This record gives sequence, structure tokens and C-alpha cells, in this order.
Amino acid sequence: MKRRLPAAVAACHGPPMARLDFWYEFASTYSHLAAQRIEPLAKAAGIALSWRPFLLGPIFKTQGMETSPFNLYPLKGKYMWRDMERWSESLQLPKFMPPKVFPANALAASRVALALDDAARPDFTRAVYRAEFTEGKDIADPATLQEILKKLGHDPAATIAKSGEQPVKDRLRANTEEAMRLGIFGAPNFVTEDGELFWGNDRLEQALAWAAKR
Amino acid sequence: MKRRLPAAVAACHGPPMARLDFWYEFASTYSHLAAQRIEPLAKAAGIALSWRPFLLGPIFKTQGMETSPFNLYPLKGKYMWRDMERWSESLQLPKFMPPKVFPANALAASRVALALDDAARPDFTRAVYRAEFTEGKDIADPATLQEILKKLGHDPAATIAKSGEQPVKDRLRANTEEAMRLGIFGAPNFVTEDGELFWGNDRLEQALAWAAKR
Repeated sequence: MKRRLPAAVAACHGPPMARLDFWYEFASTYSHLAAQRIEPLAKAAGIALSWRPFLLGPIFKTQGMETSPFNLYPLKGKYMWRDMERWSESLQLPKFMPPKVFPANALAASRVALALDDAARPDFTRAVYRAEFTEGKDIADPATLQEILKKLGHDPAATIAKSGEQPVKDRLRANTEEAMRLGIFGAPNFVTEDGELFWGNDRLEQALAWAAKR
Repeated sequence: MKRRLPAAVAACHGPPMARLDFWYEFASTYSHLAAQRIEPLAKAAGIALSWRPFLLGPIFKTQGMETSPFNLYPLKGKYMWRDMERWSESLQLPKFMPPKVFPANALAASRVALALDDAARPDFTRAVYRAEFTEGKDIADPATLQEILKKLGHDPAATIAKSGEQPVKDRLRANTEEAMRLGIFGAPNFVTEDGELFWGNDRLEQALAWAAKR
């Protein structure tokens, strides 16, 4: 399996940095938490990140689930919404707000994220999660994505047009297929260069420590 | 709802200690991790613990599950076994060993735990988890429980006889019913005096911090 070197490694003049793949799904609440906090932690640990959006729907289907486990199991869902409030407060994020539709259709946002340069993806990702989980916006609505792109200084029309082209569609499909090969079943995930899979926002610190050790 | 004060509070001459209910299931892998590490952390935080075994089976049934989610969802199960190896190593516990039967039938062990005094329950609980998850023993086998009781200086025959009496059976049923009322859907859990529910070994630190704040 060929892997592109992230820009941070290519630009580095010292020894190559350890790398961590950050796998996230735009409908995933815990991916929001991880996206908002991962960058300074990775920087402090000397880890280069690769931001990799993928789709959970096809993976849930292989496990016999037609929607999020938080919908299938109401007690678990109820707990998750409260847990998100607590985490948002402790991370000093804007107040958590459940979206109108859960899980959101993440296809359009994922394709836009992959239409952007690697360097632009983190800011876009964080902005999508903020819109979805702190402003109650529907991230499947093109207007939501256009507004975010505009605020971040991108050309909304050109970026959305590019996100519908075959190479971008293929890249999202390839990400989702690679996630399946890695044994991913939820989000977020952190995968180290030696193939260790860490699932959940609450495993971020362990994943960074694992990546830094090697 | 009346709650008995734990011994640690009754014996305390200073202001009453904050309390945390530790809800665990004897078949639960992550409860093993929590049971092995909770006591020194609670002591350092000045928190009195109440050790509360309960049964997950009846709760899973209310959610439409006839077995553990780790069996229902194979990808999640595979991840969990690897996660247990990593956690056991990082906590310097004996090497993790998956039990022959998972999930084990926890009924007998839970009743014995409740037949013991509050003060004896933590050691018994830890010993059961060690037998189950580091020695591969079947905790539904009376011989496993007898051996543990003997090693800990209890009278195995008398304790097991007591564990079959109605008051002990009622207490386990009451624990499981209270767990349902609290919205518990997995294990382990930590519930603070003001009713905050924290699910998972990885939420232990947050639960202790929450309990200590109040």
C-alpha cells in the first residue's frame, strides 16, 4: 500500500517526524471533539498528522446496522448526548448542540474536505464540526458548506465543483475501503505507522504516545 | 431512595467524604481494568467507593441484544481484545487472557460478592477478574469461586450457601433494577452522588474529578 508523505514531513529538515493517521467521519460527535483538540497535542508530541475523512455508513452496513448505534440503542444515545455536553465544557468548546438530523449525511462535506489541499483540510474540518454540533446546522446542505468555504477564503463554487469530480469521489471511496481493511468500525480513529488502531476521542493521548515511542 | 453509608464514611472523623458508586459486571472486560486500578485513585482523590455488582444481561435484553455487543459486532469485538492487551500492559497488570466463554455467566460470582461484607468485596472482585481475564478460568464454575474464597480467608461453603439465600438474591436484583433506573447500558460505570453517570474504564478519572468537585 503506497502512502503519500504529509507536507509536514516533506518540509522537515531534521529526522522524519512520526506520523499518525486521523480517521474521522463528519457525522460523528466524538470526531468533533478529537478534531478540535488534536492539533496542539500532536504538535507537542512531535507527530505529523494526516487528516482522513471516511464514511461510516458502508461499514455499519457490514455489521448489520442501518444507522448509528446511538440511534439503535437509545440508552447509549442518551448517554452520548450528555457526555458530549460534559466534554465540550471541559475542553472549553462552544456549547454543544445536537444537530437536527443525526447522523447527518456526510457525503458532501467529506468530498469537499478531500477536494481541498491537505493543508486546508484541518480548518475546514473543524469549521464543519462547529457548524454541525455547536450551531445545529445541516452539513448536508450545500449552503452550509458554501458559507464555511467562503469564510475560510476558498472559492465556494470552484471547490464544490471540484468535490464532484471523479478523482475526489475515488479518493473518498479509497479512504472508506482502507478504513475497512484497517478494521475500523466507528469514529474517530488514530492509526499509527506500525498499524495500531486506537478508537475514540478518549484514546487520542494513548495513540500519540504510541506513535511518539516509535 | 435510601442509601446505606459506606463504612469508610461512618468511620471518618472529619467532614463526610464524597462518594462514588462503582457499578461493575463480572463478565465485563473493561470492568476488570477499572476494578484493578480504582482503589488507589479514589483514595488519592478522597473519594469513598461503593462496589456495586449488577447484571448486564437483562439490560442488554431491553435494548434488543441477546449477548454482548462485542459478540454481536465482530469488528468491535476484535478491537476490544487488542485494547485489553494494551491496557493490561500499560497498567502493568498480569498478561490479559481472553476467557474460554465470553461473556461469562456472572450470576454466581455476583451473588457471592453481595454475600460478603462491603469491606471484603473489593478483594473478592479483583480476584474474580484476575481468574477470569488473566488465568482463563470460568467464573461460573463453583470450584473457581470456592478457590478464590479460600485464598482470601473466607469459608467457601458457608459463603456460597449464603449467596443462595433470598436476601442476597434480592439485593442483586435490586442493584440491576437500580442500574436500569440510572440509565446504565454497559459496564463499568461510575455514578456520583449528584447522579452523573460516567460509562467506561476510560471515564474513571473524569468521574473522580466530578465527585471530588462536589
